[in-house]
Parts: sequence; C-alpha cells; structure tokens
Amino acid sequence: MLVVMKETASEAEIQAVVTKLETVPSLHGQRIDGQDLVVVAAVGDTAAVEGLGLEQLGGVDRVVAISKPYKLASSEIGQQKPLHIAGRQVGGGTFTIIAGPCTVESRQQTLETAAAVKAGGADMLRGGAYKPRTSPFAFRGLGEEGLQILQEARQQTGLPIVTELVDIKNVDLVSEFADVIQIGARNMQNYALLEVAGKSGIPVLLKRGLSSTLNELLQAADYILKEGNENVMLCERGIRTFDTAMRFTLDLGSVPWLKSQTHLPVIVDPSHAAGERRYVTPLSRAAAAVGADGIIVEVHQDPSQAVCDAAQQLYAADFADFAQQIRAVAEIIQPSSPQSIS
Amino acid sequence: MLVVMKETASEAEIQAVVTKLETVPSLHGQRIDGQDLVVVAAVGDTAAVEGLGLEQLGGVDRVVAISKPYKLASSEIGQQKPLHIAGRQVGGGTFTIIAGPCTVESRQQTLETAAAVKAGGADMLRGGAYKPRTSPFAFRGLGEEGLQILQEARQQTGLPIVTELVDIKNVDLVSEFADVIQIGARNMQNYALLEVAGKSGIPVLLKRGLSSTLNELLQAADYILKEGNENVMLCERGIRTFDTAMRFTLDLGSVPWLKSQTHLPVIVDPSHAAGERRYVTPLSRAAAAVGADGIIVEVHQDPSQAVCDAAQQLYAADFADFAQQIRAVAEIIQPSSPQSIS
Amino acid sequence: MLVVMKETASEAEIQAVVTKLETVPSLHGQRIDGQDLVVVAAVGDTAAVEGLGLEQLGGVDRVVAISKPYKLASSEIGQQKPLHIAGRQVGGGTFTIIAGPCTVESRQQTLETAAAVKAGGADMLRGGAYKPRTSPFAFRGLGEEGLQILQEARQQTGLPIVTELVDIKNVDLVSEFADVIQIGARNMQNYALLEVAGKSGIPVLLKRGLSSTLNELLQAADYILKEGNENVMLCERGIRTFDTAMRFTLDLGSVPWLKSQTHLPVIVDPSHAAGERRYVTPLSRAAAAVGADGIIVEVHQDPSQAVCDAAQQLYAADFADFAQQIRAVAEIIQPSSPQSIS
Amino acid sequence: MLVVMKETASEAEIQAVVTKLETVPSLHGQRIDGQDLVVVAAVGDTAAVEGLGLEQLGGVDRVVAISKPYKLASSEIGQQKPLHIAGRQVGGGTFTIIAGPCTVESRQQTLETAAAVKAGGADMLRGGAYKPRTSPFAFRGLGEEGLQILQEARQQTGLPIVTELVDIKNVDLVSEFADVIQIGARNMQNYALLEVAGKSGIPVLLKRGLSSTLNELLQAADYILKEGNENVMLCERGIRTFDTAMRFTLDLGSVPWLKSQTHLPVIVDPSHAAGERRYVTPLSRAAAAVGADGIIVEVHQDPSQAVCDAAQQLYAADFADFAQQIRAVAEIIQPSSPQSIS
Repeated sequence: MLVVMKETASEAEIQAVVTKLETVPSLHGQRIDGQDLVVVAAVGDTAAVEGLGLEQLGGVDRVVAISKPYKLASSEIGQQKPLHIAGRQVGGGTFTIIAGPCTVESRQQTLETAAAVKAGGADMLRGGAYKPRTSPFAFRGLGEEGLQILQEARQQTGLPIVTELVDIKNVDLVSEFADVIQIGARNMQNYALLEVAGKSGIPVLLKRGLSSTLNELLQAADYILKEGNENVMLCERGIRTFDTAMRFTLDLGSVPWLKSQTHLPVIVDPSHAAGERRYVTPLSRAAAAVGADGIIVEVHQDPSQAVCDAAQQLYAADFADFAQQIRAVAEIIQPSSPQSIS
Repeated sequence: MLVVMKETASEAEIQAVVTKLETVPSLHGQRIDGQDLVVVAAVGDTAAVEGLGLEQLGGVDRVVAISKPYKLASSEIGQQKPLHIAGRQVGGGTFTIIAGPCTVESRQQTLETAAAVKAGGADMLRGGAYKPRTSPFAFRGLGEEGLQILQEARQQTGLPIVTELVDIKNVDLVSEFADVIQIGARNMQNYALLEVAGKSGIPVLLKRGLSSTLNELLQAADYILKEGNENVMLCERGIRTFDTAMRFTLDLGSVPWLKSQTHLPVIVDPSHAAGERRYVTPLSRAAAAVGADGIIVEVHQDPSQAVCDAAQQLYAADFADFAQQIRAVAEIIQPSSPQSIS
Repeated sequence: MLVVMKETASEAEIQAVVTKLETVPSLHGQRIDGQDLVVVAAVGDTAAVEGLGLEQLGGVDRVVAISKPYKLASSEIGQQKPLHIAGRQVGGGTFTIIAGPCTVESRQQTLETAAAVKAGGADMLRGGAYKPRTSPFAFRGLGEEGLQILQEARQQTGLPIVTELVDIKNVDLVSEFADVIQIGARNMQNYALLEVAGKSGIPVLLKRGLSSTLNELLQAADYILKEGNENVMLCERGIRTFDTAMRFTLDLGSVPWLKSQTHLPVIVDPSHAAGERRYVTPLSRAAAAVGADGIIVEVHQDPSQAVCDAAQQLYAADFADFAQQIRAVAEIIQPSSPQSIS
Repeated sequence: MLVVMKETASEAEIQAVVTKLETVPSLHGQRIDGQDLVVVAAVGDTAAVEGLGLEQLGGVDRVVAISKPYKLASSEIGQQKPLHIAGRQVGGGTFTIIAGPCTVESRQQTLETAAAVKAGGADMLRGGAYKPRTSPFAFRGLGEEGLQILQEARQQTGLPIVTELVDIKNVDLVSEFADVIQIGARNMQNYALLEVAGKSGIPVLLKRGLSSTLNELLQAADYILKEGNENVMLCERGIRTFDTAMRFTLDLGSVPWLKSQTHLPVIVDPSHAAGERRYVTPLSRAAAAVGADGIIVEVHQDPSQAVCDAAQQLYAADFADFAQQIRAVAEIIQPSSPQSIS
C-alpha cells in the first residue's frame, strides 16, 4: 500500500501517517520524498492497512494498492497447468471444444444435437437444465428431467456434460449428473453459490460477469479454489459496453492477460457475444488465434425451433465444418505462452 | 415485435416472413412498405414470436421488440403508491433516510451509531451482518450475532432494520430480524435469492446491479413481486463506467426515469458511488433534488476504525447536520411526479 | 513514478531498475522492500522516466504514475476563483443559467426565445450557428447569418452570447460575435481547436467528451490555459455508458470531484443527457444541489418546430417557472466548497 | 420511423399522430394495432419526421428509427471492393501489414525501422510527424522535418507512407508527403478535419473514436466519402470500457459486423489496445483470424528509447518473425465474407 500525500500536505501531516502505520506492529512506514509530493509506503502486512482509515488523515490524497488482490488463482503461486476432466485434458496445449444446445428442450433435440457434435469432434457437451432468465415469465428449463436427458446423451456419446447450477439447493442433484458445473455470468459474484460449487468437488466453468474486471474474476475463482477444488476453468463471454452493434463486446484481450496472471485454463464463449450465428465463426477463430484453451459454443439441430437464443445457435449440420475451421487456426498457434513472446 | 427487412430483401423473402407469422394462430403479420425497406409487424401474442427464429429467415435484418419487458413493476399497471414499513411510509411525498454502519462490527459500535442516527432524524437503521466481499479472504460479517445486535438497536431506538441477505439458506434467520431485506448489487440477478426474498413477505430493498440496465432492474423486481410481495424499493447505487475518478458513477438520471416507468419507490445510495466521505453530502443533496424517495447512507461512530468502506462512512457526530441539509433540499421539491413537469 | 516489481523478480533485476534510474542526473531510485514484492520509487524529474522504457526491463510488473497529469487546471496552483464575463460573474457562489435554442434557426425563433429567457432570469444566451452533426447529411447551422442573429439578440436583451466553434477557420468570425466560445464534446480532444480558442482570448465553455475521464478534461483545459486564456468553464454534459434509458448518463459526481481538483467553474448541461424534456427539470435541480456553478439548458419558443433536439428543448413559456425552481435549490446550498464538508 | 404509443394512449392521441404525419406531403402514417399498444409507422421521406416533434405529442412513448443512419458507407450501395493505394491492394482477400514507429523521432530511428519492416514483409510504413497528445506539455512530433524523413524512408524502401493529420492547416503539407492520411481516434468526429481529408483526394485511414459506436464510425466515413474520396479504410483500435487490465478493449467483433455493413476495408490496430508488447502478437493473430483486411502495428528499432508508447512497440529485430506468424493465420482464413458463413 502506498499513501500518496497532497502537494500541500504539511510536515506534521506526513509524520502523522508514518506514526499511524507504526502503531501496527506488523507494519512499517517508509517515506519517499518526491519533487512535488511525498509518498509513504506501508511495508509489511498490508492487509492491516485497510483498517487504519488513512484516507481520512489530513493531507492524504489517496491510498494505492500495489499487491494483487487474488491469491490462489495467481500464476505466481502455481504454474500454467492443464486440468483433467473425465479423462480429457483441458489446457496445456490442447484446444477444447464444448458444444451443444443452449437449453435442453426435449430428449430428441438433445440426443440429436449431442450425436452431431460428437461426430463433428466436440470434446464435451453443453446443455442447460436450469436457465437463469432476465424475466421471471420466460422458460426456465426442464430441471431434473433435463439432467436425465443429458445423462442419456453422455451414455450415447461418451461426452462429459457441462451444465449450469443456478440455485444452491440443487447442488447435489446437479453434481450427480454434471462432469463440469457451469457458473453463469449473472452469478459470478454469488459467493454462496461459488462456495457450494467449490465444495462439490466437481470441476467448474466460471463465466466472467458482464461488468466484472479480470481482477474480480480471479477473486471469484479464489472462492472456489479455497474449498480445495482446483479444477476451475475461466470463461470470457463478452462484457457490457456502450456499443450495441453486437449483443456483448467479446473481450479477447482478456485471454492473453489472464494467461499471464493465472495458471487456470481460459475458455471463450463466442455465442452470447455474437448474438447472431454469422458472427460466431469469426469470433471462434479469433478465440483460437488469441491463445484460448478452448471454446464453448451453442449448437442446435434446428435453431429455428429453439426455445431461447435461437439466432445465435449454430446448425448441428454445420458443426463438423465449423469445428474443423477452428481447429485449423488453433493448430498453427505455437504452444508457447504469451509471456514468452517478445 | 417488428421484423425489419433488409433493403435488398426480395418479395418472396418478405412474403415468407408474413407466412411464418401466420402459422401461429395467435399472431398476425402486418406489412408496412417504406420508402427504402419493408417492415413486418407481428401483431398479437408477441411472446410467441421469439420461438419462430425470424432473425434467421432470408432477407431479415433484425427483429425489434416494442413492448416493455417488465410486467408487474410497470407503472402502467399500478400507480405510484407508497409502501408502509413498520409503521413508516416510504414514497408518496415522504423522504426516507436510512442510515447506519456498513457492517455490524460490535455491539458498542452499532448501538452508538444507531443512537446517533436516531437522534439525527434517520427513519431506518442499516447495518450488514452478512457481507458479500470480492475476495474470500476479507471479513464477511458477524452473522447471527450481528443480527442480534441489530435487534437490540431496534429495541433501543425504535428504528426498523435494513440488512442484507446473501445466501438463501439464511432467509429464515434474516427474516426473523429484518424489517427490510436488502438484496445487494452483486445479487440483483441471483434469481433464486430474489424468489426467496419474495416469498419471505418481508419488504425488500433491491439494489441495481453495477452494470444492469433499468429494464433489467424492473425485471428483477418482477421476480419478487410475482411471489405476492408488493413491498419493493428500488435502489440506485452507482454503475460501472470507464471513469474511475469516483468509485462508481451515480446515475441520478435513473431516478426520474424509474419514476416514469414504475409505481415502486426509488432510493439512492450515495455512499458506495462516492467512495470518499466528502462527496457523500453533495450526492445526497442531488438525490433529494432529483426526486428520489430517500437515501441509504453509511454512518459510523468512528470511521477510522471501520472494518470496511472506512473512507466513505460519515461521522456519526456529523449526521444530524447532514440529515438537516438533505431534508432542506427534499422539502423544496414539489411533490408532483416528474411526469407532470412540462 | 513507482516501478512495481513482480514477486518473482530477482535481486539483479531490481538492481537493474535502480541503475537505469540513476543514469538520469535529475532522477534518483529509492527502493522499498515490501513483504511480497519490491517497489522502486523514481524520485526527481519524473517526466524523464517515460523515456526510460522501464516497463520492458526484466522483473518489472508495471509503472504507476503518482503525480497528477494536469498542471494549469489544478486547484493546487490557483484557488477557486470566479470568472468575469461581459460584466457577469461565473462561479464564486453565483449560479449562472445559460439558456437558449439548440440551433439558431431563424431571426424570429431566436429573438423570441432570447426575450423569453431574458424575462425568465437567464444570465446568458446560448445558440448554435455552426452545428457538429453525426451525419453529413443533417442540417449544420446558418453560419455567419446565425451569428448576426445572435448579435441582434444580444442587443435586444443584453445577454452575453455562448456559441460553438467547430472549425478553426471560423475562429475570427466567431470571436467577433461570441462572448463565450463553446467547445463541444466531440472536439474536446481536437487540440488544434483548443489552442485556437485559447489564443482568441474569448472565454471558453469546454464540454467534456462523452468518454473522457475527468483527468483528460483537465488536461484539455490546460491546452486553453497555456495560451494565457484563463477564462475557462468546464461543462459536464453526460457520458456514454452501457445504459440507454436516457440519451447519456449525466455524471453529477463529476461536479464535486472537479471542484476538489480545479479552480475553474463547473457548469452542467442537463438537456443532452436527458434527451427528453420531462427529465430536464429534475436533472437541473440535481445539478444545483450537487454544487454546480450553473447550467446550460436548451429552450425553444416552439420545440415542436425545432430543427434538432426537439424532444429535449424546454418550452420558452415554461422557462421562468423552471428557472425559479432551479434557483430555489441553488440558494439553499451553502457556499462552502465540497472540500470543507466533513 | 415508428411512433410507439403508450399502452394508455387514447384514440384521440393516436389519431393526432397520424394527422401530424399526414401534414407532410411526402409522409404517410400507417397504423398497427397490437395486443397491448399501437404503433404508427411513418412511411415515406422519413428524414422529414425529425422536425415534427412527435415525441412531444400526448400518448407517445418513443420514436424508433428503422433505417440505417449511414448512407455512402453502406454495403447495400456498393459491394465489398478492394482499394488500390500506391500500387498495392487493400482488402479483397489480401492481408495488409502497416508497420513502423509510433513517432518519427529521428532520421536514423525511422530509416532503420523502415528498413527492418520492409525486410520483414510490411506493406506500408506508418510514422507520426504530428502527434495528438493528451497533455499540451508532451512531445508533439517533429512536424515537417518528420514528413521529410518519412519521404526519405519511402525512397529507400518503396513503402507507401501512412501518417496522421491533426490540424486542417497542415493538410497541404501532409498531402504532399502522405500516401495515406490517418485520422486519429480523438478526431473521428472532428468534421472539419474529415472534410479536408476527403477533399485532399489522398486515401484515408479512419480510426474509430474510443467511445464511438460503429454506426457513428460509418457516418464519419460518410463525411469523407461525400467529398468524392472513395479510398477509406476503417480502423478498430480499441474502445474505452470499465476494464483497465489492458489499455483499451479491442473490439474484434466489430470486424465481422463492419464487413457485413460496409464495402470498406477494415484494419485493426492491436498496439494501442495492448499497451504492452507481449499482448500485441496474440491480438494481431486474432485480428487476422476474425477476418480483418490488415493490421497497423507499432515497431521501433529500440523501444527502450522511444519517445512515446515505448511499452507497446515491437522490436524491429522481431518483426519478420511476427509478420510471418500473423500471415500464417491470415492465409488459412477462407476468403468468403462472414455473411456467407451459415
């Protein structure tokens, strides 16, 4: 922590800050006399600084945090390391394609789509049994029936299942059926849900909130990691900005940034940002090119009949071609981390 | 719903849209031939349009929604009407001041602050027993012990208690102690929590998510209202924008906009947006002047010792003076609704 | 400037930073050994640090600027001081109302509106002769003819004229007619225009760009101030955010922030943010309550005939009533600066 | 234009809107009776609607524009077509790499960097002789001397020159030396400058303003196109959002969106968004993968000595390797337009 004094701060005010810091045994105040102003560095157990109310002392302009706020998700603790989920590797040079319908609507729709994405080379199957909806009057998923359909799809295709958990009271049920629990963007800071997902021991795909900073995303991951659940994938799915040309602004720059800060794999969801099918392919190619460890993409055997997100779901019939295009890009990216690129 | 055709759409493509709409008995397609392009209006049960996948038909540029997405929160159903909470009126020409510490830290701190805000003219007492924190390693509140301290504060001051619910498994406990359940910004789209708060029957203060549109805020209110809980206050607490001069950008324009769209009272939280104590007073005055039904403000008997948000909490000793300034502004605002201002 | 080292930085890497700083005679590197990491403070002529490329040295995490980037606009140089424009004081406890049509459309429209706002108590007349328009096919103002109409309005009412300069080649012409040159939001970082306005010697109303930080606004003011033109008013007019309920998000928190950082007066434009007439009055009251030194508001004798911004212009017939409401709020605000509010 | 009536609008209010529209000979009002509300479509010369003040009539909720606001830049007028600049094709299946220093600092620095990027396979040379700077006290370029150095670099390498115009009074001078005039992000809505660039006849690289919508970018292009200058390249360079992990948020989704709306080529600037060198390569690969027609990237023979943007400029020595990586991605993208991807 650095306490930046105002240019007009008096000597007594500067001294008061140093004295205040010295009241805490684990802290030490180091003074830096600049040309225009003075900065006092709080050295030691900087967590203790927060309770001191330094911003309120006379002559103090602001207090600047220097250390990173996330702990367990930091690449300075671990190194980049792949996860192993239901026998499949995520990260570490592989490119994972998770595909399937937005929502489990029926047995037939799900099984047909699952078969198509399996045939097209997908690594996992996505599908929502519980859907968070902006309006309470919209369709909210088949619930347990949906989970059972997903289980049948797994039996038929061998694909691990990625499905969303929206309510802590369903955690046991969802854990029984899911290979990966998805935490949606709206729930990224629903800490009760994060802890329950952490405790479940099931791998977690954590989506970035639509106005969450990357720091906050890593701190949300800390909530899961601290429960001893190390299998966390981060997911960039578009942020909310002033521009409405697309549904959301896909922040592809987040991928190399995250890769430089955390050991966790980073997945990109191109479908929700695109909003329209024709933008999904170029955004997926870009996700592969920017260095993501995979994508999670919506596919439907007949999008024109889809209950939600109809416009952005790929046709199952086109999936194999799509997957081939994306893998072609992923394959020419060198496996070196962005850090090593000069 | 309006289906806007591309300028290049063929007659057959236009006809296909009309035909598609006519396949639904409750829908009718009305064609409008403009100078440059054609629009097809979907008339009737427009909820049925979503499932048709019209965006995917040839020649279609986009589908534009016309109806408002929120239902129960709309002022076109009810009229502006005040709530009555623990014998106090909120809205309808009154100006409600909710004040108290960010967090219940100790019995002494809470009771002293409660006594001060009561003496200074506050209408309700706020205080957090459960705190949502960005990092899992930060202090997260005293829990049940905090709730009991708040109860004691209510007994001493007579002030109704506003306290946050962060986890559905605590709803019974919080309901026992709270006069108003606060739903925090991070949980505005935690629908499981909204429903539980709705079912509790306790009045709810619903904070706007930091990147939520006002449409989404009203739809979140719908989640509570549909459970038969009509006592919902909306709360503007600052949104996330590109500017970081303040902690958040307080969107005071949301107040007259909301007042023109909903019958629910609108409260402003100036403390979290300000981030610094010196900005709380001007923002509170502005909230009163813009037509808010009240404010919720953080006050501490000794902010320098506060566990969190130290820099933005008002000194309890200054509260009476502060409240008087704000009420002076509120009193000169005419009670007419913004709608009636030419 | 502070050079924050990575937690993994080696002793040699830290030493290399200190050595690099010492190569500049006017700089000195002071090392701070924290618990987790090391920070090296660059003390002295910090402007010289930028050229050193420290971000690129091994082990460096980032370089943090400590000094404020604006110079002349800083309140640490001057103190809050009023301007005097055409015999009228702006700032220093007065509340200035600038009113008039968006655009000078005709002699009659301008003179009638001018008479109405004069009668209603306005302090200055606004009106655009040159209009910046998003599309080149929109009406762009009457030009010199418009300026002459404004001159006639000044002769009839005695009100000083505020009018926009959009093109440096018109500076002499505009200077001949204007008492205040307005620099619009789109041109806030058009530095050639800022310098020309500065050199004109005419007082300037500088509008904040719609995605400009307050730091950038003050640096833009520096462009005008450095030409020796000290009569600069800053203007908050709404910023661009994700929310589209209103046309722009009026950032009223910018007012107390700016008042704490600069000696220049701060004016609020409620019309462009509101977009609709019914929101202009509450936003104007809020501007007065938050401590602005005045407002600039659009008024038209017949908005239904207005060439642009029809929906947001107040009726001239309502102006006197409007102005009275706003002044009532301004009058109860204590003249103390926000800084002195505990 | 569509006039959406409130649900509460009376029959007389609806009729008044139709009547108002019919007062304009070139307009016709067509009524659509929906289930909940009525919409009146203004058919005909919709530009005439703006002056009618329909938003202000009783019972009107809002007026929604249907037509696209840009005209000349629309792909519905022209088709995707390549430009030909100094004998080089831009767009139409080629991938153009524009590279060079942020700023022309000296003859040696520029000539060495130019030689390196030429050898590495660049198609054009970038370099700033006039620099727009946030602070007036920062270095603002060598001016004419810089232009002459660029001319020498062109003579030595044969590379066309891309350089920025910041002030209309320099247009003749810049036109004499530039093969492409760059309009920077800050000047995207400096209409006087756009028109002067349009009139020059020199091809223009138009950068998106940092909070400009894509609609506004295309309308800004209209300012240049309407002067008869058809050689306009659009440039995505990152937008301003709430997240500060990177300097700007590179909006790569803008590329396929723009390609579906305009016939103009789209170039991506990865350097300014990255802010740090290590992110430039992944973002450049992503730009190629998403379907951009090229990139404009900053390169310096010794970034540690760079006057500005030191941290983000690539080392000239690494450029050949960098360019090869990016071209490898560009080459596997199929030449089909995003529109044709199902």
